[in-house]
Amino acid sequence: MQSFKLKEEIEGFEFGTPMDTEIILEKGSPAKISFNEKITLGKTTTLAFDLKPSDRIYGLGEHLGSINRRGRRFRSYCRDEANHTEDKFELYGAHNFFIHVKDHEQIGWFIDFPGEVVYDIGFEKEELFEIKILGRDFRIIKIPGSSIEEIVSRFLQMIGKAYIPPKWAFGYFQSRWGYKDLEEIKEVYETFKTEDIPLDGIYLDLDYMEDFKNFTVSEKRFPEFKEFVENLKNNGVYLVPIIDAGIKIEADYNIYEEGIAGKHFCLNAQGDPYVAAVWPGKVHFPDFLQPKTRQWFGEKYKYLTDLGIEGVWNDMNEPAIFYDEKSLEEAVDLAAASRGKNLNVHKFFELKDTFADLLNDESYHQRFYHNVEGKRHLHREVHNLYGDYMTRAANGGLRRHLNKRFLLISRASSIGMHRYGGIWTGDNASWWTHLEENIRMMPSINMCGFYYIGADTGGFGGQCSGELLTRWFQFSAFTPLLRNHSALDTRDQEPYAFSNEVLNNSRSVIKGRYRLIPYLYSTYMKAVEDYKLFFKPLAFEYMEGYEEIEDQLFIGEEIMLAPIYKKNQSRRLVNLPEEMALISLTEKTTDITLAPKGPQVMEYDLNHLRFFLRPNKMMPLGKPAENVKNLSVDELEILAFIKDRGEYLYYDDDGISLSSESKHLMKITVSRCGENYEIDVENPLPQLQIIKFKIVDPKGCLQNIRYRVNV
Amino acid sequence: MQSFKLKEEIEGFEFGTPMDTEIILEKGSPAKISFNEKITLGKTTTLAFDLKPSDRIYGLGEHLGSINRRGRRFRSYCRDEANHTEDKFELYGAHNFFIHVKDHEQIGWFIDFPGEVVYDIGFEKEELFEIKILGRDFRIIKIPGSSIEEIVSRFLQMIGKAYIPPKWAFGYFQSRWGYKDLEEIKEVYETFKTEDIPLDGIYLDLDYMEDFKNFTVSEKRFPEFKEFVENLKNNGVYLVPIIDAGIKIEADYNIYEEGIAGKHFCLNAQGDPYVAAVWPGKVHFPDFLQPKTRQWFGEKYKYLTDLGIEGVWNDMNEPAIFYDEKSLEEAVDLAAASRGKNLNVHKFFELKDTFADLLNDESYHQRFYHNVEGKRHLHREVHNLYGDYMTRAANGGLRRHLNKRFLLISRASSIGMHRYGGIWTGDNASWWTHLEENIRMMPSINMCGFYYIGADTGGFGGQCSGELLTRWFQFSAFTPLLRNHSALDTRDQEPYAFSNEVLNNSRSVIKGRYRLIPYLYSTYMKAVEDYKLFFKPLAFEYMEGYEEIEDQLFIGEEIMLAPIYKKNQSRRLVNLPEEMALISLTEKTTDITLAPKGPQVMEYDLNHLRFFLRPNKMMPLGKPAENVKNLSVDELEILAFIKDRGEYLYYDDDGISLSSESKHLMKITVSRCGENYEIDVENPLPQLQIIKFKIVDPKGCLQNIRYRVNV
Repeated sequence: MQSFKLKEEIEGFEFGTPMDTEIILEKGSPAKISFNEKITLGKTTTLAFDLKPSDRIYGLGEHLGSINRRGRRFRSYCRDEANHTEDKFELYGAHNFFIHVKDHEQIGWFIDFPGEVVYDIGFEKEELFEIKILGRDFRIIKIPGSSIEEIVSRFLQMIGKAYIPPKWAFGYFQSRWGYKDLEEIKEVYETFKTEDIPLDGIYLDLDYMEDFKNFTVSEKRFPEFKEFVENLKNNGVYLVPIIDAGIKIEADYNIYEEGIAGKHFCLNAQGDPYVAAVWPGKVHFPDFLQPKTRQWFGEKYKYLTDLGIEGVWNDMNEPAIFYDEKSLEEAVDLAAASRGKNLNVHKFFELKDTFADLLNDESYHQRFYHNVEGKRHLHREVHNLYGDYMTRAANGGLRRHLNKRFLLISRASSIGMHRYGGIWTGDNASWWTHLEENIRMMPSINMCGFYYIGADTGGFGGQCSGELLTRWFQFSAFTPLLRNHSALDTRDQEPYAFSNEVLNNSRSVIKGRYRLIPYLYSTYMKAVEDYKLFFKPLAFEYMEGYEEIEDQLFIGEEIMLAPIYKKNQSRRLVNLPEEMALISLTEKTTDITLAPKGPQVMEYDLNHLRFFLRPNKMMPLGKPAENVKNLSVDELEILAFIKDRGEYLYYDDDGISLSSESKHLMKITVSRCGENYEIDVENPLPQLQIIKFKIVDPKGCLQNIRYRVNV
Repeated sequence: MQSFKLKEEIEGFEFGTPMDTEIILEKGSPAKISFNEKITLGKTTTLAFDLKPSDRIYGLGEHLGSINRRGRRFRSYCRDEANHTEDKFELYGAHNFFIHVKDHEQIGWFIDFPGEVVYDIGFEKEELFEIKILGRDFRIIKIPGSSIEEIVSRFLQMIGKAYIPPKWAFGYFQSRWGYKDLEEIKEVYETFKTEDIPLDGIYLDLDYMEDFKNFTVSEKRFPEFKEFVENLKNNGVYLVPIIDAGIKIEADYNIYEEGIAGKHFCLNAQGDPYVAAVWPGKVHFPDFLQPKTRQWFGEKYKYLTDLGIEGVWNDMNEPAIFYDEKSLEEAVDLAAASRGKNLNVHKFFELKDTFADLLNDESYHQRFYHNVEGKRHLHREVHNLYGDYMTRAANGGLRRHLNKRFLLISRASSIGMHRYGGIWTGDNASWWTHLEENIRMMPSINMCGFYYIGADTGGFGGQCSGELLTRWFQFSAFTPLLRNHSALDTRDQEPYAFSNEVLNNSRSVIKGRYRLIPYLYSTYMKAVEDYKLFFKPLAFEYMEGYEEIEDQLFIGEEIMLAPIYKKNQSRRLVNLPEEMALISLTEKTTDITLAPKGPQVMEYDLNHLRFFLRPNKMMPLGKPAENVKNLSVDELEILAFIKDRGEYLYYDDDGISLSSESKHLMKITVSRCGENYEIDVENPLPQLQIIKFKIVDPKGCLQNIRYRVNV
């Protein structure tokens, strides 16, 4: 399975060239590698690194806990994990890239392997970092670099350019499992309009399907769907339906019939399609590892694009399995044998846990197979590719059908999938700690190639409060993917579902997000193009004494966030590693004041977006709009904190083309001459009429300069 | 059921006289009260308070989340909750006291009711605080006061003096579910000795019993138990066994037979003893609401005291119920009916959840009854008294058998139980967020009368890391109850179970705790005596701009903690509401430096205890000892931060007597005269030889004064 992912052809994207990498299995390598034949699944390889007390480990993508991964265990094994308590060591992604930082040295490592990898980063033994690769057929790539950022950049180049969504994907999206029919979707759309809250789309959870069948739309609940889709789109609002991995077993259901006929399904040991159960009850799983199946499945998305759909989310593709026939039978047997018994604690918990553990039991992965280039592979061995390859199938299909950019996100992922779609961070909950996890998780995921990322704002499971939703918006306003999503039977979570105050604050914050889109989109496009991070921990810049700060993040090169993520807090402590300018935004107002280096208290109203602009940096700000379709960049405000000289490169394009023809780069330079500033705009946008500068300089003398570009 | 708890006789304690209270059911009351006949269980009463945006709510005892309870829901209904995720709104205690703070006004409220009470503190509607009392027969007491602290103090006077443990209960205790035999306990004891870690006791979880039977000791696994207990006690180490609520149904088991004969068990609707299942399988529950049953059950503790035991923990007394015969039968039926079926998501989750929900299903509470003064009461109606009254039974028995102080803690509790025992905060986990919960929970529990409190240090469930254990010790070093406890099948969690570094750091911190015992014990005794808080939030002192700080606490009147509760952090931000002295302790060293008011970074080594001494305050520090038995207060060091004049009252006694005859109060006064200090010690302890003063003054000139008392 070695090189499984790096060598293959990539549809429609230029694949980054591996550069200056090193396969390290030779003697004298900094890692000790031992082969242990004892662990059951194939041959396990153990890598061991010494950890000095000051060593730090960054990366590993979608996992809970601190940005510095030290002191924990993780497992790269995609899992439908519904309960994100802090002890969970696997989520939906398998992201085997990390950087080992020792004082001012650092090395990056990428383990290219489609099966299970287990990390113990000084948990069992504090000075030992041990990695177990459950198999032998892998590739390990060592990535040197003179800084953390350089290593990240080289890794990103190696794995190839990330997925670029349409610009409208940077808008606000509403979602809910439980919008039961078209009327309800319409009501959501209209309420956003009435309440004057920007909206770029509504996600459709599985409620829209007929009996949980992929590529169907319930005629009863969603009549005249195509007309509705087109009508909304004309108003700048996109519908984004879900597609699940499992295909319902049902005679005459076209996808099922085609799958059987085309030999597209994963097989059991006897060579028959494997039967598992998910939403609709019994299903088969498409074998996305077969190119012909990807082609076939991708083709199916035409059903949606023909309805006017331009965005999809792929879900349950770890794949999630509720039970299979064997496991359910065994559980029922145990229950029957318990009838009338006096069960003590051990027997009782065995019974209870047998039923609880049906959900996503990993033994299922030993019961079905994939066909890879004519060779049979046990699912367990290639598990982490499943969601990834489903998304490749979807990407291929959507590109063919639409020939322009589309929104595509997936729950399961592995490294490489970033070229085909983004990810949301799965089934979090309406917990304050999950807002904190969201903040910490973003840079780790970004390091592993994914840029179009975000969490379910407000939390998927559990009961959200208005305060939590508002505080979460204040962070998610800076994540490329901004979606408010919640589960069935939870409290309504739309911005208007709470009090008027929550509505007003949310509106102000969401409109603030739209003011940020010129900056966020520009940052996104430049970051992908230049293989730089969109989300960056403070530690990556080696600001001594600030390495441990994990609740403040840089966004792009210009700004720093310090969000509030605790209940009943109107202020928080922030530790500024350098003098910055504090920016305060509402829908209409923009304040900029000087903030000194060091620890300080930051007041944080619920109706503001507040963040810091770094020294000698600038950023553009637009005006709010009801959606990206109506977002004008004809007037941009430029915020600048210039100590002597600053330069900003603004990126824009048409937001939808696959080609780079519409790409535009505008350079703004500001220099300080005494108390005044010299401003130069190179290659101004043709339509740009006025740029308003707001500048804070270290002496505290504020200046507003209205600057005309095209006269 | 009105006045159920306040009016009754209290064994051996003088009950605080209700003073200046007001029963508020009349017109014009600040609370709106409405009676809603719709809710099924009896007649529900709803109280509603308006919440202004700046209002804060403190109290409600043992619950998760922020100290300011605003924005959440809670339920006073004792529950064996094994999974303390932040959305849980009931734990083991029912503590119906809270303070409503509006700007600079405040009112306390106590709801005296033994059944369910539900609080919505601005969750559903942000400006509405709604309380539902599921029943009518209650008493509401309004407690006015000119400050939060005054209200707390009046409430504490009203509900009566708290339980006083022996002084040895302030030592370090090791515990683990899974110390399988006497040899293992011995090994723990000896390892603490070998590794030079102080130890005052070892808790015994249910492993010591024969077949989970209360008041038995396994002869096979714990042979010659009495000799062992006495031997350890001679060395200053106490064994503290567990007692559970359920009594195993087993012919010839004396407790079972006596319980049946004496009509001591709760009855079902047919008048037969109710059968539920817990650890041993089927059990009966003693009806602790009957005085005769309390008397009988209390008598049973003699079995333990005769073995030399002087401390007990009462567990599973919410009561926890794994299943009952009816519920198990129904679940098995559902499983049998599912055999061979194609279950879709709804049917599958119904099946899975039916088994999961067997554990502590509240429907059981509708199936058994108590006998209260000849009247039958459904358990559901008086549920919150169960653990409380079990502890009263134990307290009564232990007092009679020992006639001196004893250690007694309970998992379930309600207000009033504080007079009979302490509580530990139940089955937390080895999560960093649970260390934070521990910090926030202490003052809320303390407000409700409980002083001998603490959490399972290192976490009960889950896998602890050495770093988490050490950081947790750094906080628990300040909680009266300091116990390291962990669950079966979790990683070993003793201070020596990790690396040498963890061992060394833990040893240093635990020894630091023993240096603090003179201060902590003195603070505890004075706080109980004077009805003051041991743990106090910053907000209770109205320091404007500091009200929202919930990760810093005052301990007594003198010191402030700012613990580290995040992974991989060697420093944290602290916001000092006033200039203080930063104290740094190890086993042998004591540093004291000046810390200015305002936000700052505090470095926090793993081997230190670090905290702040408030202005014009002093505190005593002792020397480490292997246990409290060997703890000498012949030499005390006094730390002082004197701006002009400070006074400290030191309390000590023999640590074991029920009477106050051995009580000793020593007053130290320090005044500043220029650069020097005048020191006066009033009523010095007879054995005290030397007091060493360490003083920091605002000008930063440190002075060490060795002060001889008795020459």
